[in-house]
Amino acid sequence: MDAPDLTRRRVLAGLPASLAAGAVLARPPRSLEEPKPVDVVIVGAGIAGLVAARLLVKAGKSVMVCEARDRVGGRTWSHEIAPGAYAELGAAWVGPTQDRVLALIQELGLTLFDQYTDGESVYVSRGDRKTFREKPPFGAAPPDPLLLPDLAIVSTWIDRIAKEIPVGAPWKAEDAQALDRQTAETWLRGRTLNLLGETAKNFSAAFEALFGAESREMSALFMLHYVACAGTEGVPGTFERLLNTRAGAQERKIVEGSQSICTRIAAELGPERVRLSTPIRLIAQNGEGANVIGNAFVVRGKRVIVAVPPPLAGRITYEPALPVERDQYTQRLGMGWLIKCEAVYDTPFWRAQGLNGSAVINDGPARSIFDVSPPDGSRGALLGFVGGDAAREFSGAPESLKRAVIENFVSCFGEKAREVREWHVADWGREEWTRGCPTAIAPPGLLTAYGPALTAPVDRIHWAGTETGGYWTGYMDGAVRSAERTVREILAAS
Amino acid sequence: MDAPDLTRRRVLAGLPASLAAGAVLARPPRSLEEPKPVDVVIVGAGIAGLVAARLLVKAGKSVMVCEARDRVGGRTWSHEIAPGAYAELGAAWVGPTQDRVLALIQELGLTLFDQYTDGESVYVSRGDRKTFREKPPFGAAPPDPLLLPDLAIVSTWIDRIAKEIPVGAPWKAEDAQALDRQTAETWLRGRTLNLLGETAKNFSAAFEALFGAESREMSALFMLHYVACAGTEGVPGTFERLLNTRAGAQERKIVEGSQSICTRIAAELGPERVRLSTPIRLIAQNGEGANVIGNAFVVRGKRVIVAVPPPLAGRITYEPALPVERDQYTQRLGMGWLIKCEAVYDTPFWRAQGLNGSAVINDGPARSIFDVSPPDGSRGALLGFVGGDAAREFSGAPESLKRAVIENFVSCFGEKAREVREWHVADWGREEWTRGCPTAIAPPGLLTAYGPALTAPVDRIHWAGTETGGYWTGYMDGAVRSAERTVREILAAS
Repeated sequence: MDAPDLTRRRVLAGLPASLAAGAVLARPPRSLEEPKPVDVVIVGAGIAGLVAARLLVKAGKSVMVCEARDRVGGRTWSHEIAPGAYAELGAAWVGPTQDRVLALIQELGLTLFDQYTDGESVYVSRGDRKTFREKPPFGAAPPDPLLLPDLAIVSTWIDRIAKEIPVGAPWKAEDAQALDRQTAETWLRGRTLNLLGETAKNFSAAFEALFGAESREMSALFMLHYVACAGTEGVPGTFERLLNTRAGAQERKIVEGSQSICTRIAAELGPERVRLSTPIRLIAQNGEGANVIGNAFVVRGKRVIVAVPPPLAGRITYEPALPVERDQYTQRLGMGWLIKCEAVYDTPFWRAQGLNGSAVINDGPARSIFDVSPPDGSRGALLGFVGGDAAREFSGAPESLKRAVIENFVSCFGEKAREVREWHVADWGREEWTRGCPTAIAPPGLLTAYGPALTAPVDRIHWAGTETGGYWTGYMDGAVRSAERTVREILAAS
Repeated sequence: MDAPDLTRRRVLAGLPASLAAGAVLARPPRSLEEPKPVDVVIVGAGIAGLVAARLLVKAGKSVMVCEARDRVGGRTWSHEIAPGAYAELGAAWVGPTQDRVLALIQELGLTLFDQYTDGESVYVSRGDRKTFREKPPFGAAPPDPLLLPDLAIVSTWIDRIAKEIPVGAPWKAEDAQALDRQTAETWLRGRTLNLLGETAKNFSAAFEALFGAESREMSALFMLHYVACAGTEGVPGTFERLLNTRAGAQERKIVEGSQSICTRIAAELGPERVRLSTPIRLIAQNGEGANVIGNAFVVRGKRVIVAVPPPLAGRITYEPALPVERDQYTQRLGMGWLIKCEAVYDTPFWRAQGLNGSAVINDGPARSIFDVSPPDGSRGALLGFVGGDAAREFSGAPESLKRAVIENFVSCFGEKAREVREWHVADWGREEWTRGCPTAIAPPGLLTAYGPALTAPVDRIHWAGTETGGYWTGYMDGAVRSAERTVREILAAS
């Protein structure tokens, strides 16, 4: 987009390009680029940042979006696996009650298609392979007799308590203190029999895919609030809606790829408003506006929207320093760790066996598996989620990871799963500009101590990103909602 | 120390000095200062950084210490309350088994004096005031019949389990997984009767002073490892040693002030080796060395020691990016929040009443109180620890804080405690270059997931600071030990 300029700046600064050459170490820049001031500077060109830019431009504001990567999209990252057919290395699905992202998809002229659900799902546990149909009341959960009694009870508990947690303000729940002083694991253990350890394994499969983390790593209040957020105004969130394909968060995908939300908006905005390869290091504000500063770069705005994951927002230097509550918050709100592994095949061969490509395996690493073939079935593709403990175990050994995940695919769909045409891995923990995925997770004690600080504007700085989204936090819909909120804040203030 | 230079750089860069004037916002620097290369660049002039510098110079290495503040000392911060008499707004005491800091104090020619313990301590709970003598087996713990049964049992549990936790490697403990999946609060609740809530209140008083945090904010494994660290080789840590004055971590203080450890070493090193007001923003390394970069400043070293609190180390930009495990670790390891409140009086008037100035109050904010008068009693001084929930409640309201803490002093020592001659507050959460105190705390799941990443060198970067200290982590002794370890690493490698 601004490649010639990028090259010039890199050479000037001796930054990563030269490092890669092993010749010169990074040094401070000696020259300075300074585009003209705008109404709002936006840090981060993921969904939140770009949607905010789009809404502000519609409202007559001038904007500049500064993106650290050399691409837009943030945690959406689509790639072509056949001509015009995309698979997702990042955020993939949309589903019911995700009103804001669904409206945006329609506005942008993008097309949805159903996640493939014809046929049976696979469940592998203790070496046994079973197939089952996803149906109420357990939906995508496998029909393991060691699991179902616990699941029935825990789902009911979760939904009942989640319903009482105010979306976007979990610290106001009546039981907030009691729920925030324990881990989600402690809370779940108190409500399950966990026969032969099957419940713990199944919940781990779910948590690793949902959060990129284990239940021990998060507060019970955080987990229950996450469920509360899986709905919309007037429709309480449910655990089932988070987990399910049909009528759930894995219901549909975007034909053109999720990232096309971002590339289309970026194209609308034009290259003069979206600046790539521009990591922001310092935001200095006073009563009049802010200087937003990167490497050999400064742009001035009347206001700023920071639309990057909170742990990365916490690494920017702010002048004056942010309020202590905000600082303490980002000190502890860390990203989950998710690796998405994708095998592309000539055809979705499992469909001929009456299988829909969905699977749960209790002996991972890829404990949750989905069919991510393009809508026309012109290729087959399987996606394995490797998160939390499994990500930690396998991230450093890409060959072992590939072998183990393909074994998982084989154990579900047979020997044909070895005939991999292409192999793609997105290890989000190693992505410098995300540092984990899918979302940031709150440990015990954080939400009740510092909750409001995550979204409260600090003078002229506003905070977007899916973590701040309220409904559907952690999802694309939450990112859109967060952008809409910050734009409301800014338009109300100006 | 380097004031004229500092001024020049500030003017050049338009950084904080101009911001304070409200005139010009921060902008990228246009000129560059570049001292000559050294063997080791050290980031942070607290005890860890300065001790490392001292040892390296003794070993014939050239060093430069870069400190963000305009003073050395880090979390030590002494001030004169009478001619030649110091009180501590930061780290104050040393005690038995803190071998490394005790040896250093002797080497530097500093003098120790005993914490005042003649007479009785005060305990205020549910409006009742009692006095008691600190003696075995409960030491500094108040003799509340609602508390003592729990304390007897829990202390025994804590010490027994702590003894099995390898110092510096808690993830290797046999019960590591079980202890790390729950909060310290969950663990304590499972082992106490908590009659009328008194045990919880007393533990909160202890946790707020020890950690600047509540037991719900940390992993049980972290808490038990912290106890394990309160000893030295061959002498297992105990909960009592952490809490006690006599034969405990609050046994003695330094006549010249704790900060004099740092000012003396800085004087030894000389101003050309210790550079103040130089926050480091970027460390870029390759196989040959590293560029350590601040505002309009770069110094090159063969190796680097980062000796700042881990959450702040995580905000420096590294090229290449740090390993994902290290990054995930600092995303979640947040600082506690401690406010130290000090009232200076004409005399230590409580001593005449037969009181030693130590107190525990269950209805804080200053739940732990100590006599911090100078050794000659030429002034009286009381220190109140306000941490965790109490810090969060009162930090934003300095006048309410002062009123409430003085009421606490009055409830312990009578009306004379209102006759405050000087009032000093160190709100460590608001200190830009510490962002909390006394130490960083690990939430559940962190130590078992990423433990070794906190101290493992990353090529030419080594990690010091009390959080990495092993024995007496969180204390001055831990800082010294961490410095000694990094120097061993560097000398072994070169």
